[in-house]
Amino acid sequence: MAADTSAPRIALGQFNPAVGDFTQNKEKIIDLARRAEANRAELLALPYGALTGHPLFDLPLFADFAGKTRQTIKDLAHELGSLGLGGLPVILGHSAPTVNRANTADVAESLYLIHDGSATEILPTDGIGTVKCAGWNIGVLPQTTMTERFITGNGLDLALVVGAVPFERNGPQRTAAALTQAAQVAGAPLAFVNLVGGQDDFVFAGGSSLFDANGKLTARAPLFVEDLSLIDVGQMAQIAPEEPQEAQVYRALTLALADYVAKNGFRSVVFGLSGGIDSALVAVLAADALGGSQTLGIGMPSPYSSQHSRQDAADLARRIGANYQEVPIKPAMSAFTDMMEMPGVAEENLQARIRGVLLMAASNVSGNLVLAPGNKSELAVGYSTIYGDAVGGFGPIKDLYKTEVWALARWRNSEAADRGEVPPIPESSITKPPSAELRPDQVDQDSLPEYAVLDPLLRAHLEERADRTELIAAGFPAETVDWVLRQVRISEWKRHQYAIGPTVTARSFDRNRRVPITNRWRNS
Amino acid sequence: MAADTSAPRIALGQFNPAVGDFTQNKEKIIDLARRAEANRAELLALPYGALTGHPLFDLPLFADFAGKTRQTIKDLAHELGSLGLGGLPVILGHSAPTVNRANTADVAESLYLIHDGSATEILPTDGIGTVKCAGWNIGVLPQTTMTERFITGNGLDLALVVGAVPFERNGPQRTAAALTQAAQVAGAPLAFVNLVGGQDDFVFAGGSSLFDANGKLTARAPLFVEDLSLIDVGQMAQIAPEEPQEAQVYRALTLALADYVAKNGFRSVVFGLSGGIDSALVAVLAADALGGSQTLGIGMPSPYSSQHSRQDAADLARRIGANYQEVPIKPAMSAFTDMMEMPGVAEENLQARIRGVLLMAASNVSGNLVLAPGNKSELAVGYSTIYGDAVGGFGPIKDLYKTEVWALARWRNSEAADRGEVPPIPESSITKPPSAELRPDQVDQDSLPEYAVLDPLLRAHLEERADRTELIAAGFPAETVDWVLRQVRISEWKRHQYAIGPTVTARSFDRNRRVPITNRWRNS
Repeated sequence: MAADTSAPRIALGQFNPAVGDFTQNKEKIIDLARRAEANRAELLALPYGALTGHPLFDLPLFADFAGKTRQTIKDLAHELGSLGLGGLPVILGHSAPTVNRANTADVAESLYLIHDGSATEILPTDGIGTVKCAGWNIGVLPQTTMTERFITGNGLDLALVVGAVPFERNGPQRTAAALTQAAQVAGAPLAFVNLVGGQDDFVFAGGSSLFDANGKLTARAPLFVEDLSLIDVGQMAQIAPEEPQEAQVYRALTLALADYVAKNGFRSVVFGLSGGIDSALVAVLAADALGGSQTLGIGMPSPYSSQHSRQDAADLARRIGANYQEVPIKPAMSAFTDMMEMPGVAEENLQARIRGVLLMAASNVSGNLVLAPGNKSELAVGYSTIYGDAVGGFGPIKDLYKTEVWALARWRNSEAADRGEVPPIPESSITKPPSAELRPDQVDQDSLPEYAVLDPLLRAHLEERADRTELIAAGFPAETVDWVLRQVRISEWKRHQYAIGPTVTARSFDRNRRVPITNRWRNS
Repeated sequence: MAADTSAPRIALGQFNPAVGDFTQNKEKIIDLARRAEANRAELLALPYGALTGHPLFDLPLFADFAGKTRQTIKDLAHELGSLGLGGLPVILGHSAPTVNRANTADVAESLYLIHDGSATEILPTDGIGTVKCAGWNIGVLPQTTMTERFITGNGLDLALVVGAVPFERNGPQRTAAALTQAAQVAGAPLAFVNLVGGQDDFVFAGGSSLFDANGKLTARAPLFVEDLSLIDVGQMAQIAPEEPQEAQVYRALTLALADYVAKNGFRSVVFGLSGGIDSALVAVLAADALGGSQTLGIGMPSPYSSQHSRQDAADLARRIGANYQEVPIKPAMSAFTDMMEMPGVAEENLQARIRGVLLMAASNVSGNLVLAPGNKSELAVGYSTIYGDAVGGFGPIKDLYKTEVWALARWRNSEAADRGEVPPIPESSITKPPSAELRPDQVDQDSLPEYAVLDPLLRAHLEERADRTELIAAGFPAETVDWVLRQVRISEWKRHQYAIGPTVTARSFDRNRRVPITNRWRNS
C-alpha cells in the first residue's frame, strides 16, 4: 500500500505525439503536467513515445536524433522544475540507441522518471523497472514486454504499463484481458497509459485504464482521443463505454487519415470518385477526418462508365460537401491508342492509368494528398492496376476486406440516419454488383470468386496462415483455393509498391507480412 | 587431423537455388552429389538455403511449406541412397519454423547431415553443431552467426561454414578476412560454401573457399557462377583470381537481373531509352543478362527532348542489339493538358507519367518485365517522378550513386574496347551534362548539388548514418546538408513505393533502412 493512506491520485496522460517533433511534444507534456498538478495528481504517467513519437525504427541510431532526445528530457525536467511542477513525478518511455549482443548498434526500450528538476533512467531488474517516488513503490514496464515478464507482487503500490498499443479489431478487449491478468499477478493496482493517434500504418488506440489488485477495471479513458484521466487509486472512476466494433474501426481509420494528412503537412486530399463503394467509403472517411471542403473528388468516366455510376459519384460529393469535378478520359484514351496498340487488358489498365495521371496532376497543382482506394481483398489477389487506381500516398481502407467495406459503409449510413442526418453514401453504391467498369457489362465476379467466399478464405490464409491443405479441409473448393493462393503469390510485387495505410488487423500488408516477391512455392 | 591420413577430399557445391522450387533444387543437389561421388569426394557441403532457396522470411511459418521442406529432405536422403550415393555425407542448412522465447511462432536456422539414406538435424551445442562422419570430426555453423560464436579448437578435423552471404562492395574481401580469423581460432581447416544467385534484392556472391588451420586461403571458387569445387584438404588448389571492384559490381547486377527475370517466369524486359546515362546502363545490363534480342527499348521523346538524345538512344539500341521503337509523346501531352490545367512541375511530371503508361502498356501487351532506371542519388533526394520514370518491377541500378553509374558505364565500355568490341554506350551519353529534359535547357544541376558533392554526402548519411553535425564537420556546406537531409526525409514515401533492386552496399533502400515516412525530425 502507498505510504499515503488516503487514495493516491494519478494522472494518465493519453496523447498524440508527432515523430521527431520534440518541441511540440515537450510543450504538450508540460501542459499535461500543469493540468495534472492543478488537479492535485501525485503522479503523471505518459505513454511510450510521448516525447519522441513512436515507432521510431532506426531514427535513434542517428546521433543527432539520440542527442536531441537526451537533451529534450533534460530540458523538460528543468522546465518542469522552473514552472514549479518539479514535485510531480512524471514517467515516460521511448526507444533509444544501445549496443546488442553482436556488438552492433541497435535500438532498445528505455523508461525514465522525471522528478525534482532532473530525469533518471529507470534501469530494469529482471526486465521490470522499480522506482520509489512520492512515497510510492512503483513497478514500471513497457507494454511490449508485458506478456513476457509479468510484474510479480513484491509489495508494489502500483504497477505501471507504459504503452504504445496499436489498434486492431478486438484489440482493446484483448489488451484489457492481458492487463487484468497482469494486475492479478502483480497483486497491485495496475495503470496502463496508451498512446493515441496515427503514425504511418499504425493507429494507436488510447483507452488508458486502471485495474485494481484483483484485476477489476476501475477506470478507462475513451478510445482515439487525447485525454488526461485523473484517477484516485482504489476508487471507481469513469469508464468510457465500449463502442461497437464498426464504430471503433471507423474511428481508427478516420484518425489514421487525419493524422497522416496533418503530420505530413497536407491540408487537403484528392481521390477518384467512380460511384463504386470503395471510393465512396474513402471519400466519406476523408470528409469526416478533414471536413468535406478539404476534399476533392474527381469523376473520370470512360465510355464504359455507367450513367448511374456518374450520378452516384456526383451525388456522394454533394452529400459530404466535397469539391467535385468531372473529367471524361476519352481524349487521353484515344491519344494513347493512336500512339501504341493496346488490346484487351492493356486497354483496361490504360483507363486506370489515365485516371492515375489525372489524380497526380491534380495533386501537383494544388498540393493535396492523393488517396488510394484499394481494399484488402483486391490487393490480396492483385485485382487493381498498378500506377492506375493504385496511385496515392495513403490507402485508408487497404486493411479492410471488401465485405468489411460494405459493412462499414452500411454502419456509417445507419449511424447518420440514427442522428437524423442524410446518409452520406448513395444506397446504390452499396447495393449494386461491384464492377471496375473497364469494359462493357464487366462485374468483379467475372474474374473473382464471390466475396462471401473470397474474404473468409483470404482471412484464414493471411491472418491465420492457413495453407492449402487447411483451407481445403475447412471446406473451400480446391480450385478456388489454388486460384486465390496463386494470385496472392504473384501479386506480391504490386503490394510492395502500394501506399501504406492503417493496419486494423493482426496482419496487414504493411505489418507482420514478410514473404519474398520471387517465390516459386506452390502446393498444388 | 582426419582419421584418414591421406588428404581428405571435400566438395563445395556452390549453387543457385530458387525459393520454393523444391523439385528443381533437389534435382540439382542430386546432380552435385553424383559429380562429387564420381570425383571421389568424401564430403559434400552445400550452402545455406540449398534446398529451399534463401531468404525465406516467413514462408516456413506456413505449415505446408515447412512440411514440404521436411519431406523433401527425407526424399533427398532416400534418393541419394537409392542411387548409391548414400555413403557421401552431405551437409546443408535452411530456415525452419520454431517457437521463440515469447512462445510465438518464429523462424530459426537449422543444419542437417544427410548420410546412409537418412537425414539428421545437427543440433548445436553452444551454437556449434558437431558431427562425426566418415571418420571426421566436423564443426558446422551457419555463416550468420560466425562472428558471434567462433568455433574454438577442440580436435576438429574440419570447420564448415554453411553460408548465404550477400554480395556488397568489398564484401568478399571482408568475408575472407573473417573466415581467416575463424580458421585461426578453430585451429583447423575451414571450409566456407556460399550461395550464388539473385533473389529479389539479394545477390549471393559465391566465392566458396577453403582455409588451412593457419587461416591461409588454399582454394577459392569464382564469384557469381555455380561451381563444384573438389578440394584435397591440406593441399593447395585453384584460387579464382580477384576481379576488379567494378567488374564484381557489374556481374552482381547482371546476375541479379537475370535471376529476377528467370525466377519470376519472364523472358524479356522493356525499358525507356532517353539517351541518358541511367537508361543506357540499365539497357546494357539487360542485354548482358538476357541477350539484346530479349530486350525492348522505347524512345519516348517530348518536344523538350534534344535531337542528340534521340540519336544516342537509337545508337545504343543498335550497339547492344536491342529491339527499339520510338513513340513521341506529344499527342498524349496535348490530350491531357486539354483535359486539365497542368502548369509547371505538373507538366514535367506529366511527361514522365505518359512514358510510364506507355511502358506498362508495352509490358501488358508482350508480357515482358519493365525495368526502372532510378539510381541511388536521385531516389535519395526524390529527383524522380513517382508513377512516371519510377514505374517498373525491378530497379537494376537503384543501389548505385550517380557517380557510380558513370564509373560503371566507363568500365563497361573500356572492357569492351579491351576485348576489341564496340563499346556499347555512346560516349556522349556518358559525357554530356545529365538532364531529365522535361523543360527547355534543363540540367540536373539546376535542382541538385553537383554529384561530386551530393554522392559523398549521401553515402556518409545513408551508409555511415552521419548526421547534420557530422556532415558539416566533414566539410559539407550547411546549406547543402540541410537541403539534402530535407529531401531525403520528404522522399521516403516515394522510395517506399519503388521497385526492389539489387543491394550492393551495406545499406540500400531495400535493406537495413528502417525509418518512418511520417517524420518531422530535422536538426536545423
